[in-house]
Amino acid sequence: MKIEVVENVLKYNKDQADKNRNLFKNNNILVLNLLSSPGAGKTSLIIETIKRLKGKKDIGVIEGDISSTYDAEKIKKFTDNVVQINTGGTCHLNATMVAQAASKLKVENLDLILIENVGNLICPVGFDLGEDYKIVISSVNEGDDKPVKYPPVFIKSNLILLNKMDLIKISDFDQSFFDKKIGELNPRSEVIKLSCKTGIGLEKWVKWVLDCCRNKNDM
Amino acid sequence: MKIEVVENVLKYNKDQADKNRNLFKNNNILVLNLLSSPGAGKTSLIIETIKRLKGKKDIGVIEGDISSTYDAEKIKKFTDNVVQINTGGTCHLNATMVAQAASKLKVENLDLILIENVGNLICPVGFDLGEDYKIVISSVNEGDDKPVKYPPVFIKSNLILLNKMDLIKISDFDQSFFDKKIGELNPRSEVIKLSCKTGIGLEKWVKWVLDCCRNKNDM
Repeated sequence: MKIEVVENVLKYNKDQADKNRNLFKNNNILVLNLLSSPGAGKTSLIIETIKRLKGKKDIGVIEGDISSTYDAEKIKKFTDNVVQINTGGTCHLNATMVAQAASKLKVENLDLILIENVGNLICPVGFDLGEDYKIVISSVNEGDDKPVKYPPVFIKSNLILLNKMDLIKISDFDQSFFDKKIGELNPRSEVIKLSCKTGIGLEKWVKWVLDCCRNKNDM
Repeated sequence: MKIEVVENVLKYNKDQADKNRNLFKNNNILVLNLLSSPGAGKTSLIIETIKRLKGKKDIGVIEGDISSTYDAEKIKKFTDNVVQINTGGTCHLNATMVAQAASKLKVENLDLILIENVGNLICPVGFDLGEDYKIVISSVNEGDDKPVKYPPVFIKSNLILLNKMDLIKISDFDQSFFDKKIGELNPRSEVIKLSCKTGIGLEKWVKWVLDCCRNKNDM
């Protein structure tokens, strides 16, 4: 009984995700689904991305939280194209929530949508939102063992961002261990090391985003 | 249909949690359920607690992870009384998993069981394991807004530990904002500020644990 219900939920989600994907494709919008633990730096990365792409790309932001509009308010200082989803306790976004949020963005004007998923390294991985790419943000202070302890999100992501590199010298983070484990789990995905605080790696990240926008337009 | 299944799952969990609670009570064992985001310092806190209570209290540890035995191996250097639960992808421990793990510990010899829940600030909150107290560990580098963004775990916890205090001077963590929000959500629960790295606050934490052991024995 339980499995059947879960399957129905995932099937329903997949159907809605496909509709989202069509909507985004018809409007030439690149959509990135940002996944991480709480406090790994998703919101800061979104703000830095908006700042650096100002005048180049029109960006919409979908903010997912179990409650509050705290992050959307932060982002509203940099763009009006932001919609907050409150999941009401649910531990991940789903495709229906994203469809509703997208209906409040002027999608015909956008080049890029950044979705900040609920801070959770486990549950959001299984829910397709219709995005082009999943991106996991791991932060130095969470420790070098996150790929070992939470493999699915590292396996399923198309890009791995290692944030808060400014803290690496005062931490016991073993970079070669982290890289080795990522290499075992997901050898095809690039790792970009960055710090939203110092700006390290942000140029590389922005280039990655722009390359993806270009590839999407060529499709 | 879906709601009915969820209710059955929670009812079943509650029944098993009550059985666990009886087992722990009959053996005079204090049981603490440690909740946090990935990488907030649950494992380090467990190790520091074992070191400081050596010769005073016999401690068992139940390690919860979606996969790997990485944390249990770390803890095994300090005690043999450790059991690893691999949830196989599930985002929280439940009472049945804890019952199975407890059956592998020599409960008749123990004074205290520390349960390290899966690193997840959302899902584990709803699942009673039969513990005496829920304890949330928030770390400075996750940011001061965690109580605003993830209220349930801060509301339901009996003690709030703010870890990685050694990083507070180089972060933009606003201590008064954090304290204010905790005061609004859960004014009865104490906040202990600590750093497993420097040892700040660990004496206070150990005293809290010993007081709880004493109170449990007096019941």
